[in-house]
Amino acid sequence: MQYLPPALETLVEQFARLPGIGRKSAQRLAFHVLNLSEEEAHAFADAIMGAKRSVTCCPVCQNLTEGDGPCAICSSFKRDKGVICVVADPKDVIAFERSGEYNGVYHVLHGVLSPMSHVGPDDLKVAELVSRVAQGGVEEVIMATNPDTEGETTAMYLSRLLQPFGVKVTRLAYGIPVGSHLEYADEATLMRALEGRQRM
Amino acid sequence: MQYLPPALETLVEQFARLPGIGRKSAQRLAFHVLNLSEEEAHAFADAIMGAKRSVTCCPVCQNLTEGDGPCAICSSFKRDKGVICVVADPKDVIAFERSGEYNGVYHVLHGVLSPMSHVGPDDLKVAELVSRVAQGGVEEVIMATNPDTEGETTAMYLSRLLQPFGVKVTRLAYGIPVGSHLEYADEATLMRALEGRQRM
Repeated sequence: MQYLPPALETLVEQFARLPGIGRKSAQRLAFHVLNLSEEEAHAFADAIMGAKRSVTCCPVCQNLTEGDGPCAICSSFKRDKGVICVVADPKDVIAFERSGEYNGVYHVLHGVLSPMSHVGPDDLKVAELVSRVAQGGVEEVIMATNPDTEGETTAMYLSRLLQPFGVKVTRLAYGIPVGSHLEYADEATLMRALEGRQRM
Repeated sequence: MQYLPPALETLVEQFARLPGIGRKSAQRLAFHVLNLSEEEAHAFADAIMGAKRSVTCCPVCQNLTEGDGPCAICSSFKRDKGVICVVADPKDVIAFERSGEYNGVYHVLHGVLSPMSHVGPDDLKVAELVSRVAQGGVEEVIMATNPDTEGETTAMYLSRLLQPFGVKVTRLAYGIPVGSHLEYADEATLMRALEGRQRM
């Protein structure tokens, strides 16, 4: 038995496809859309197609941008082009930028190496990173992939790949997160925090 | 500092307007949309406008439907037109239909009386209910608004409004929810369950 008008059911199904949205939430969202004004619904639909159409990858760092030229970070004269921070995902760039402390540029891989999911170097923006480093002018490449198996493997793979260019390759520090409690830290993190201890 | 391309930022803002979706979730959803194919994104945008455009209110029960005629429930010859279940919201119809036990028809008020939010009888489908009952052929009107102050007030108001027509007006039973534990039941529910006790 179909309880919803077909057009509403279609919208519920569309919402239910989004990550983390179940059938109940999808229904709630669809009812919300019904209560929007015609203009508001239009703005929502346009935003979807607009983002899809005009968001591109920066030709330099591969981060998301709009238009054909380099992104705002790559084209800023204030940023140090000699330091490249390699991240897996555009969301990671946002995390770094939010801290406001990093002054170098980025390279977005759009994923990590994952033999289990058949993701190899050719599926990532690895060649683009190598050619950036090969062009010269790069002093340091900071590996900022996630501290899990796949992130580690990717960082390791890239650092070997960049070795011939004589560039300094570093890795983000591991340790206790600021503001957390020692008693909740897992063994691996505690061990890494001990290993990486620094003189006060 | 803007971290996202404008078109993506617009989409994030659109998602963040939805109920229960915060900035972080909105960002996650927007990134998901970016990874959709052109056709998938189109289907999503179309579903929004489609639902907005083609979903209407049934001229009889005021539930959501498509097209100009009565909804599937109102036009089904299997349903008992002599029993009208009055609910506040189209979602409540779905809840009843899911149980599959109710064989009458519905009347959707699209809200409840709420002096605090300036919602009066004219803002609800009250006149439509009265004219349905006035047309005759209705034996029973079941008040199925939520068991809260506003739902109670609305049910009370409607039952008085329908008194002149000599129709039987009933209210959903209160009591312990099936499958719940007595120890977690609140006092009001327990009292109502006691009051409404029935011979076994």
